Amino acid sequence: MTPESRTGRYFEDFRLGETIRHATPRTLGSGDASLHIALTGSRFAVTSSADFARAVGYRTQPLDDLLVFNMVFGKTVPDISLNAVANLGYADCRFLRPVAVGDTLTSVSEVIGLKENSNRQTGVVHVRSTGMTSDGQPVLSFIRWVMVRKRDQAAVIDAAHVPVLPAQVEPAALGQACPEIDLTRWDDALAGSAMRFEDYQAGERIDHVDGMTVEEAEHMLATRLYQNTARVHFNALSEAKGRFGRRLVYGGHVMSLARALSFNGLANAFHIAAINGGRHAAPLFAGGTVFAWSEILETAELPGRHDVGALRIMTRATRDLACGDFPRDPADGDGPGVILELDYWVLVPRRRAA
Amino acid sequence: MTPESRTGRYFEDFRLGETIRHATPRTLGSGDASLHIALTGSRFAVTSSADFARAVGYRTQPLDDLLVFNMVFGKTVPDISLNAVANLGYADCRFLRPVAVGDTLTSVSEVIGLKENSNRQTGVVHVRSTGMTSDGQPVLSFIRWVMVRKRDQAAVIDAAHVPVLPAQVEPAALGQACPEIDLTRWDDALAGSAMRFEDYQAGERIDHVDGMTVEEAEHMLATRLYQNTARVHFNALSEAKGRFGRRLVYGGHVMSLARALSFNGLANAFHIAAINGGRHAAPLFAGGTVFAWSEILETAELPGRHDVGALRIMTRATRDLACGDFPRDPADGDGPGVILELDYWVLVPRRRAA
Amino acid sequence: MTPESRTGRYFEDFRLGETIRHATPRTLGSGDASLHIALTGSRFAVTSSADFARAVGYRTQPLDDLLVFNMVFGKTVPDISLNAVANLGYADCRFLRPVAVGDTLTSVSEVIGLKENSNRQTGVVHVRSTGMTSDGQPVLSFIRWVMVRKRDQAAVIDAAHVPVLPAQVEPAALGQACPEIDLTRWDDALAGSAMRFEDYQAGERIDHVDGMTVEEAEHMLATRLYQNTARVHFNALSEAKGRFGRRLVYGGHVMSLARALSFNGLANAFHIAAINGGRHAAPLFAGGTVFAWSEILETAELPGRHDVGALRIMTRATRDLACGDFPRDPADGDGPGVILELDYWVLVPRRRAA
Repeated sequence: MTPESRTGRYFEDFRLGETIRHATPRTLGSGDASLHIALTGSRFAVTSSADFARAVGYRTQPLDDLLVFNMVFGKTVPDISLNAVANLGYADCRFLRPVAVGDTLTSVSEVIGLKENSNRQTGVVHVRSTGMTSDGQPVLSFIRWVMVRKRDQAAVIDAAHVPVLPAQVEPAALGQACPEIDLTRWDDALAGSAMRFEDYQAGERIDHVDGMTVEEAEHMLATRLYQNTARVHFNALSEAKGRFGRRLVYGGHVMSLARALSFNGLANAFHIAAINGGRHAAPLFAGGTVFAWSEILETAELPGRHDVGALRIMTRATRDLACGDFPRDPADGDGPGVILELDYWVLVPRRRAA
Repeated sequence: MTPESRTGRYFEDFRLGETIRHATPRTLGSGDASLHIALTGSRFAVTSSADFARAVGYRTQPLDDLLVFNMVFGKTVPDISLNAVANLGYADCRFLRPVAVGDTLTSVSEVIGLKENSNRQTGVVHVRSTGMTSDGQPVLSFIRWVMVRKRDQAAVIDAAHVPVLPAQVEPAALGQACPEIDLTRWDDALAGSAMRFEDYQAGERIDHVDGMTVEEAEHMLATRLYQNTARVHFNALSEAKGRFGRRLVYGGHVMSLARALSFNGLANAFHIAAINGGRHAAPLFAGGTVFAWSEILETAELPGRHDVGALRIMTRATRDLACGDFPRDPADGDGPGVILELDYWVLVPRRRAA
Repeated sequence: MTPESRTGRYFEDFRLGETIRHATPRTLGSGDASLHIALTGSRFAVTSSADFARAVGYRTQPLDDLLVFNMVFGKTVPDISLNAVANLGYADCRFLRPVAVGDTLTSVSEVIGLKENSNRQTGVVHVRSTGMTSDGQPVLSFIRWVMVRKRDQAAVIDAAHVPVLPAQVEPAALGQACPEIDLTRWDDALAGSAMRFEDYQAGERIDHVDGMTVEEAEHMLATRLYQNTARVHFNALSEAKGRFGRRLVYGGHVMSLARALSFNGLANAFHIAAINGGRHAAPLFAGGTVFAWSEILETAELPGRHDVGALRIMTRATRDLACGDFPRDPADGDGPGVILELDYWVLVPRRRAA
């Protein structure tokens, strides 16, 4: 964290190519795993049970992928997005190693794109953020881009660079955070589904059925757990005068809720290997009820692996709208509709050879 | 979990004698112990302190009995009671081994009773559910019965069996989850009471004094912690159109709150050995304040044990009604009154022989 | 806990010089550390990361000082302040040893002052409370005084003693809970600030900028986590008829929030060594937003230590009032204003000798 981070960096404070090491290192504990379940209701077996995880091939029980993502992301907020007007997107997000209780995570970001907007009041900042353990091993890497306010509209910005972003993570790059899975030990009844990789097909749509109402206390607990300091989530007094008149739910909490809901129909999709892209189509406020549905965009074998296959999924989360009709439209102002579109790869065990 | 469990089983999906292995195995951690205290305010010494627990004879600090009960129960919900109209009762619930941080719990249920109701729209399902550790050692066993909707009213149901239920667990069956207690190491000041087994008498009534108001965020955190997916607790949108017009607090959370409140007067009742029966007499909603009082129904020595004795207790929890007058009537609609009647056995240290 | 503690002690139940051992011993776990972060948003590196803590000289990751304070304090409530009209102040609070996950805390209080008020309805009780680990090693010691109701106005009170309280803890007494810090391993970027002891000067004022809105569920979770049973925090039904018409937020939670907010500007102030005094100037209710600012009252070198220096700080927390203007006035009834004045010593790493 830099001295500026108390009030956050403005657009003219970023330099193309600079590397920012973020505070605060965080040792993940069993308390984080329990709180993640309490806050989201996640039920995936590998991240719920040390015995299940070890039986199928993990060294120890891994922490939920989105818990790790949100922890790594949270650290970047004071330096990157405290003065962001909008969180525009994610790309090329890859999970590189499993993270377990006892691991300490730190985050570092490289500024890879800077472009002032024509109104000269804001600019778009691209960063590649990397989460790593204390020994410097990367566990997660992703690009995000945000629109950030300028402190001084008259400031002259020289650099203008917009990086080329991959439309998706290639299947060959998937699976680095997933050990070889012992299919003889994968217990479908305990995992919650008999559906294996071969049972899913591109084009298939899955309604995850359940709805989850979000309270102010819940999203604030989740966001603080990640040490994410974005004030729009916490300060009811200032937000009452803001754009929405109230606190916003952190988008990463919506992602976690959608993932937890997806257990209904995707219980064996035990690991998020990569996120191709994500868009927060509309805000969520406390009192809203989150639903989700998923479309299988693509199925892919992983080179050299016979244990797991990959499903590319578009999960849409909605606000106050059940997903039996597979809605695609974003929310209309305060009305019900799609609030999140998340394009990602999950890994699913394959059927055993006969 | 079976394929049907996304939308839940209906009455005609159950088969007498069938065994259902439930998802999701769950390794209990220190986070669960802390969250349980944060959610209930429980203050019993044995489950709060590893040092106290080991001093008196436990191998390690045990987790709260109702935390274990709710964890085992939660797993059964997607397969047993997602389409339940009513949770009718519990019987023959016995705690069989202490559960500690690091243990992984799984649940299995056997269908032991099926009887269609005369309206042909619903039926009553009895199951015996067993919680066990990964090595197959049972830690908890109980019967519960629920009224479940039929998917198709015209479906013909052959079986009709109602099991005979014991009115209570016999004293000889108590204490399996309780090690020999070293009375020389039991510290009344730390435990919070000088009252021992010999100080309680049948007929005695105890007002637990304190009241605890429940918020939506709290009961949802608790219920998700148990990975209980019953939608009546989570989905404000659908429940607004439901029977009560709002979310219901999970009955197991009410049991946990009543047990935590009972510390005032029963601080040395460190272990629930068995639950003879339980009835959720009226619903609890967020905003309600829970109080409790207990009546000692019976005192019993345990065969062959001089360390602890058993108290059979009826604890009544109320909504918005202090318990100084020992109320017995259930709530009148939304009004204040009794919401829970829980008949159970607790163990209490005995006085040391002179 | 004594038999009276179900309804609490009244003024005439205290005896000058008596020692009260409090229930319930509590083993602190990783769940407590995670919940503390989720409830407060604290970001100090030493208490967030085991690796950071060990690198700079701690044997293992210490728990947050105010988490320890609130745990020790919570145990005293059933015996000391259940019938308190007001929590009047703290003095001579010293942290004596680091507390880590796995340590079990117990609390004991000595009655060091008793003075009946002239209205004969209440009296002031001074206690010195000490928190210690199971082996009897003190980790924290503090004086607090409360105004307690008499049960019987006619009761005759003989004793009248008011102890002399130190205005502040002397610098020579600071640092017992802080190991020798290895300045070569202190990483400012990870810690979140390049400001060292030498960079602060008496008279300096720091606006901590952020605001944090508090929900009912949050303060109740925090207060129950500490096993603090003061009913004003939990019972909406009785408090609706009480002085404020609603539940009060526990003052210790306000202290923890103010400390967490102080990271903005005091990120390297990694340890609270002592609390000289504290005053809850006005109540906080759920829905209120907490801000904070700090004034450096004094800087002090510690005798014999070249690794860390001490800053004496007055942190003021406010309700619904941003702190850019450094407000000093307490809240006017329900209006915005100062709610906490906390005078304390923090330790900050020094610059390395050239």
